[in-house]
Amino acid sequence: MWRPFFQPYHLIIVQDGDPSKTIKVPEGFDYELYNRNDINRILGPKSSCISFKDSACRCFGYMVSKKKYIYTIDDDCFVAKDPSGKDINALEQHIKNLLCPSTPFFFNTLYDPYRAGADFVRGYPFSLREGVPTAVSHGLWLNIPDYDAPTQLVKPLERNTRYVDAIMTIPKGTLFPMCGMNLAFNRELIGPAMYFGLMGDGQPIGRYDDMWAGWCTKVICDHLGLGVKTGLPYIWHSKASNPFVNLRKEYKGIYWQEELIPFFQSVTLPKDCTSVQKCYIEISKQVKAKLGKVDDYFNKLADAMVTWIEAWDELNPSGAKSAELSNGASK
Amino acid sequence: MWRPFFQPYHLIIVQDGDPSKTIKVPEGFDYELYNRNDINRILGPKSSCISFKDSACRCFGYMVSKKKYIYTIDDDCFVAKDPSGKDINALEQHIKNLLCPSTPFFFNTLYDPYRAGADFVRGYPFSLREGVPTAVSHGLWLNIPDYDAPTQLVKPLERNTRYVDAIMTIPKGTLFPMCGMNLAFNRELIGPAMYFGLMGDGQPIGRYDDMWAGWCTKVICDHLGLGVKTGLPYIWHSKASNPFVNLRKEYKGIYWQEELIPFFQSVTLPKDCTSVQKCYIEISKQVKAKLGKVDDYFNKLADAMVTWIEAWDELNPSGAKSAELSNGASK
Repeated sequence: MWRPFFQPYHLIIVQDGDPSKTIKVPEGFDYELYNRNDINRILGPKSSCISFKDSACRCFGYMVSKKKYIYTIDDDCFVAKDPSGKDINALEQHIKNLLCPSTPFFFNTLYDPYRAGADFVRGYPFSLREGVPTAVSHGLWLNIPDYDAPTQLVKPLERNTRYVDAIMTIPKGTLFPMCGMNLAFNRELIGPAMYFGLMGDGQPIGRYDDMWAGWCTKVICDHLGLGVKTGLPYIWHSKASNPFVNLRKEYKGIYWQEELIPFFQSVTLPKDCTSVQKCYIEISKQVKAKLGKVDDYFNKLADAMVTWIEAWDELNPSGAKSAELSNGASK
Repeated sequence: MWRPFFQPYHLIIVQDGDPSKTIKVPEGFDYELYNRNDINRILGPKSSCISFKDSACRCFGYMVSKKKYIYTIDDDCFVAKDPSGKDINALEQHIKNLLCPSTPFFFNTLYDPYRAGADFVRGYPFSLREGVPTAVSHGLWLNIPDYDAPTQLVKPLERNTRYVDAIMTIPKGTLFPMCGMNLAFNRELIGPAMYFGLMGDGQPIGRYDDMWAGWCTKVICDHLGLGVKTGLPYIWHSKASNPFVNLRKEYKGIYWQEELIPFFQSVTLPKDCTSVQKCYIEISKQVKAKLGKVDDYFNKLADAMVTWIEAWDELNPSGAKSAELSNGASK
């Protein structure tokens, strides 16, 4: 059902788990496929920053992509229908969101002021109506909502049936839970911040990959004056993951999160952090300094964040250079 | 068409303009009616803080009310229909919003987590799921949107036809344009902040009454840990006001606003401001100190803000006392 929507685009498939297994990709798609052997070969020792047996491995695809706009989606997500019964072209909506400015400095009560039939309401400062570039478009899910294990256990039958016809900017200074199930971003603006962390095999935690990326990304977007949009498009999320397995993956995250949120709420980045890479390295230092005492895992994660940026710049030399040039640090 | 929805409640009608004219209230309503003579008689010299020939006069009603929940509505607002064609009971939805907590410290991507069929999503810190008391419920408008004069002039035919089925908390630290057309609040929590300022007759500005109240209210809610919700319910807004007249009323506001927003974004209230009244008096001082140089009007407005609080406490002696008691300052 995705064929008409995905076929025009270039696909990067990151195969998790046993690399000797063969993934059969349907005909007619323009794709690259990477398994663990490929990741190890391409990144060498730096492949340690890419998670194994966890959805976090997908961020390898962001690193090797050469495209400006990235869309990432889970394997249990299907095409949703809008209230009129029409199939939703999720990619088209994400690209619209990313091409349209964000308004993080002041709230517009009629939601996205740039949509047809909407505008800035009375009392919205005129100096803020140009908005800022949108770096992230966070889409939502009909049917199975993206709940944590405790909520899944308590409400096993809850389904999201409410189609909210809105797109909005998440205000500056406000953190949000970024879900990687139906997510798009501008790789040139924010790519290096989209690191999904150390999760899964050999790690004490899972299911916080997208959350970690979201907190880092939002702090960096706020610092660099970039926007994050959430709302449309919806996808249809069919299979709820097993809440008992999820609880095992999540329970440390649920506990640590109570320290992570105040940490990210208090992160401030110095003025000379003028590129995503510089911001990200600075956050990694603060993670080590302030979260290392929560658990040694965060020391490892901080190191992996640095490795990720090194690997990113190695695979994207022109991007690293242009980031340098654009902030005037190149000589 | 409002009868079935308003009849169960107590109405306060603030008659603007010529007090010798008689307003005919339909039978069957429990109401109080105040004209300018009543306002002058009740407040004496303090009546100077209540605007004349401007919708701002409505805030006199907030002051004399003895009720916990206040709903305020414009005279050109009618009952709207939801997408199923059913009449929307705006009051019922506002009261639901006010009885339900707000979540200003972290964004929930599925909107109001307390609504039926929704919850907090994965990654939402558990320590923040109790929320905080909701002080304000800001409803929206179908048909004629609440645009400023320049936007009305540029888009005379634009109509809001998008019913967005959402209620959300405006995050802490984010200002918004509060429209008084379809607005409810908890008078016990935030009443004294709902001063609609000096507008209309004898003043250099109009149509910023609700905006002024909204900026003060949001800053105080953020300081006191109270929530502001926006979204449902919709009303049907039928008559757009004349954009040429509006432009005359607004043009100084449009200009001043560019200084007002940075001012309100930077207001910080000291810890000993533990009641709405104390917060409001503190803001009035900062208005005088920082906005007095923008225009002498703000010196007058700052004085009127103090008069408003004096009048409020005079008419609400137990409220003033309980506010004192609740913050431990009474002896």
